[in-house]
Amino acid sequence: MKVIRKAKEIQDIATQFKKQNKSIGFVPTMGYLHEGHISLIKAARENDIVIASIFVNPLQFGPNEDYEAYPRDEERDIAKAKEAGVDYLFVPEVTDMYPNEPMVSMKITDRVDVLCGRSRPGHFDGVITVLTKLFHLVQPDRTYFGKKDAQQVAVVDALITELNFPVELVSVPTVREEDGLAKSSRNVRLTKEERANAVHLYQALREGNKLVVNGEKDPSVVISKVKHHIEHHSSGEIDYVEVLSYPALKYIQTIKGRVILAVAVQFKNARLIDNLIIEAEG
Amino acid sequence: MKVIRKAKEIQDIATQFKKQNKSIGFVPTMGYLHEGHISLIKAARENDIVIASIFVNPLQFGPNEDYEAYPRDEERDIAKAKEAGVDYLFVPEVTDMYPNEPMVSMKITDRVDVLCGRSRPGHFDGVITVLTKLFHLVQPDRTYFGKKDAQQVAVVDALITELNFPVELVSVPTVREEDGLAKSSRNVRLTKEERANAVHLYQALREGNKLVVNGEKDPSVVISKVKHHIEHHSSGEIDYVEVLSYPALKYIQTIKGRVILAVAVQFKNARLIDNLIIEAEG
Repeated sequence: MKVIRKAKEIQDIATQFKKQNKSIGFVPTMGYLHEGHISLIKAARENDIVIASIFVNPLQFGPNEDYEAYPRDEERDIAKAKEAGVDYLFVPEVTDMYPNEPMVSMKITDRVDVLCGRSRPGHFDGVITVLTKLFHLVQPDRTYFGKKDAQQVAVVDALITELNFPVELVSVPTVREEDGLAKSSRNVRLTKEERANAVHLYQALREGNKLVVNGEKDPSVVISKVKHHIEHHSSGEIDYVEVLSYPALKYIQTIKGRVILAVAVQFKNARLIDNLIIEAEG
Repeated sequence: MKVIRKAKEIQDIATQFKKQNKSIGFVPTMGYLHEGHISLIKAARENDIVIASIFVNPLQFGPNEDYEAYPRDEERDIAKAKEAGVDYLFVPEVTDMYPNEPMVSMKITDRVDVLCGRSRPGHFDGVITVLTKLFHLVQPDRTYFGKKDAQQVAVVDALITELNFPVELVSVPTVREEDGLAKSSRNVRLTKEERANAVHLYQALREGNKLVVNGEKDPSVVISKVKHHIEHHSSGEIDYVEVLSYPALKYIQTIKGRVILAVAVQFKNARLIDNLIIEAEG
């Protein structure tokens, strides 16, 4: 595996592979790699070449968010990426990605005012801007995102579709602990007791899923059930429980077709999210 | 030459050529092709494949501008494009380029509040949005623009640089009539008398150029000279005469390095523009 620091260099490498008709799979990350990322890299091995990037993108952090404090461990990430099968790891400096005051700005106006986007205004504008740049540098045939960040998947889907990127979006199933808890770098911040009842996020989603599979059409009934389960089994405070169409992420009166059931719960030192995408009848 | 109507189809064609390591030259136009466009197409023949597009992009017209009235002559354009050496002419419908309400918007905040951009707020936002889509569809190695629209060249340069498009921008010299008047579809709208004195736009630019070459450093002296020449030789009304750094398009106190000297003159039924890019000393 080669570590590439310069935008120009990764673009030249990608261009050469395109000329050789090699397919490129791309896994953009902010580093601090965990098993979720590894599963994306492994999925990307269906291509001839796998490029991953590690870039903590300042543009997608709000003024009161933890850009500076975001966890970084480059040495460990390089070892993990290599082991997982990355061919080129792109690790640019901020000054190389944003060398001057921005002249062009991008904004996503749909699929963002719900779920986690509601409390992070501008976050997804930063995400689509950096992804546009990275897609142009890496020129992937396919790019890989985790279903755990379902809203991000929906936003990337909008970006690719709307601007006609020649890139296929592949969304990869959430990796879970044995008891069902979705893997996350933040899980280590849970106390022992919190860790024990964090599994109830997933349990609650399964309860909700069961209702829908059994024919429940009313989102509020499903939401109540999920909230009730979490409140009775966990010390965390519910940030949201939502049922939306997917990937359009619209509020719905009636559950039909593809929907997302998503939760966010704030524990003392960690905010956990999880979701299920459900194919409902109708 | 093949005429392609569907975005998906031109993207598939371009992707196939990329896989065969064929270089693609791209000439985006709004149609009504004249010798300026033909010179772009001929320049693009340095690539293996030449793709041109004809699309009157509604997004770059203001509410009071002439989107509906913009001249269109598809049959003639197809004949001209074929004769000039286009391999694939992409002529999409508006509904194929913009199938639904936009979810992503792009804005260019630099290089636009000067020259023609000053009187066309939002115009270049529409330009960069459609070019982003077209670049993703056509996947060109090189794209060709005329120096006559110098601000557009500067904006495309900003777009490509800032978002790291893997595309080389080639700007092609302005095609002129024998007497020096820059070729434009609008020239036919001039009266015989106006046509006779329209040559003085170019003459005035040459006067200004001579001053700079002879060491004049003060933009206002150059601007006065150019205005004076146009006012005394032409019935048209001056919209602007500007001297700016190029391609940054900043107002300057002192003429040095690369600058643009640009004019816009309103005749009765046609607004003409012209410019010279000058390499000044210092």
